[in-house]
Amino acid sequence: MAKSFTDLLRAPESPVNLTKLPADAHPGVRSKKDALNALPALDARLADLQERLFAQSHGGTDPARASLLLVLQGMDTSGKGGTVKHVAGVMDPGGLRITSFKAPTEEELSHDFLWRIRKALPAAGMVGVFDRSYYEDVLIVRVRDLVPREQWELRYGLINEFEQELADQGTTVVKCFLHISRDEQKQRLLARLDDSTKLWKYNAGDVDERKLWPAYQEAYEATLDLTSTATAPWFVIPADRKWYRNFAITNLLIEALERIDPKWPPAGYDVEKEKARVLAS
Amino acid sequence: MAKSFTDLLRAPESPVNLTKLPADAHPGVRSKKDALNALPALDARLADLQERLFAQSHGGTDPARASLLLVLQGMDTSGKGGTVKHVAGVMDPGGLRITSFKAPTEEELSHDFLWRIRKALPAAGMVGVFDRSYYEDVLIVRVRDLVPREQWELRYGLINEFEQELADQGTTVVKCFLHISRDEQKQRLLARLDDSTKLWKYNAGDVDERKLWPAYQEAYEATLDLTSTATAPWFVIPADRKWYRNFAITNLLIEALERIDPKWPPAGYDVEKEKARVLAS
Repeated sequence: MAKSFTDLLRAPESPVNLTKLPADAHPGVRSKKDALNALPALDARLADLQERLFAQSHGGTDPARASLLLVLQGMDTSGKGGTVKHVAGVMDPGGLRITSFKAPTEEELSHDFLWRIRKALPAAGMVGVFDRSYYEDVLIVRVRDLVPREQWELRYGLINEFEQELADQGTTVVKCFLHISRDEQKQRLLARLDDSTKLWKYNAGDVDERKLWPAYQEAYEATLDLTSTATAPWFVIPADRKWYRNFAITNLLIEALERIDPKWPPAGYDVEKEKARVLAS
Repeated sequence: MAKSFTDLLRAPESPVNLTKLPADAHPGVRSKKDALNALPALDARLADLQERLFAQSHGGTDPARASLLLVLQGMDTSGKGGTVKHVAGVMDPGGLRITSFKAPTEEELSHDFLWRIRKALPAAGMVGVFDRSYYEDVLIVRVRDLVPREQWELRYGLINEFEQELADQGTTVVKCFLHISRDEQKQRLLARLDDSTKLWKYNAGDVDERKLWPAYQEAYEATLDLTSTATAPWFVIPADRKWYRNFAITNLLIEALERIDPKWPPAGYDVEKEKARVLAS
């Protein structure tokens, strides 16, 4: 039997060396054509599972508590926005909560780093999507020395505890690192500068971040080493090919939902009696 | 030249008589087949216009302020959720803010009825979608006497002032009443009760509301009479046919965005200089 994507894409054991992980691989599928052929049925499967997840918390007499949280991290242009777009095109917006985390506001900075995160967590039955997340607090914060080392060093443990807490209350966290190569990023930045409909997406600060590429890769490796746990493993998604990125993440979400195994809830009322009431109305 | 959907679907002059407006009509398109054939190109056009709207507020040196707000109202099962799903499947989620208004919380009730609405308004460049809205404050509130008549009577004028204020700050409001027939609602409620994957969508309270059908139609007629203005006209969408509902609203959104006429913003930086920086990095 074919290996699951959950197994294929799980981050390797510590210490992770990202330079050894090809960003243009496509484990689990032979070709772009095969992936694109399979995608419509996978999308339908994902939509069905999401509706079940929502339904089982919104009907019956004993609503379920389970929820799902997709965490997307990766360098600029790695495809976080494109992934959100694919997922949002497939799922019912009523059961989806997308949050894009920017640089924290003054108010957010005056709180614990998880404060703004907790407010954005998916409620029972919901799928949450984080475009960037609390991991920025051990990524850009570490690379750019935004808080003292003693503070960010503690956060790896705090994050593991937080994710255990989420698991205990029924939230499955699927953490995807969108792994692109340094050269692919260069091509994508240049493409933005070559297209008048994409100029607005380019930010001069992107090159400043790019210059810190080795420091970021090291920070990502530390994150994978210290926060890929049995409870909430990291997945490393080869993301140089957009078709593979969408294909892989769709499969990971399907597998995570299949483990939750959401069920259509029974009616919380007398069906025959209600039919009679509707017919008489 | 064909009439625009903006003209075809605009609410008739006061006094509106909903029983005279067929819920299964399909003005502006000959057949389901024609509509479904045209939809992919319309969806692509809508996605492009939405991206431009977002872009012109997020790039260049003089960001635009325009935004769009789609307000969806209609009886239970009229297809508000299905419309949101279609629109969300087409547009970029990063530029979309969907709010589903439920019965107000105690905190919301302790404020003016527009308080929770203002918090959910689309920012510059965004498309907001309201699944139910401040119009509930002159619909269910009027039908069920939730506040004294002297209070809800004043709200028609307050709503017109509010929508003028929105227009003045650059928000185009597209208000769609999803018009279904009483018999179609009966069929849709029965369909929920006949499908084990839809039982959770049925609520025994739906029949209680249905019994007030004439009072609701009267309240909708008053809303159309009193709040369809030149600034923010109502559109009456024949909604017995789901394909027509999606087709019509997609066209209305396209036409509203075309009137805004959003433009790709120029670069707010020196493109050649940035290209050189990326190439050197």
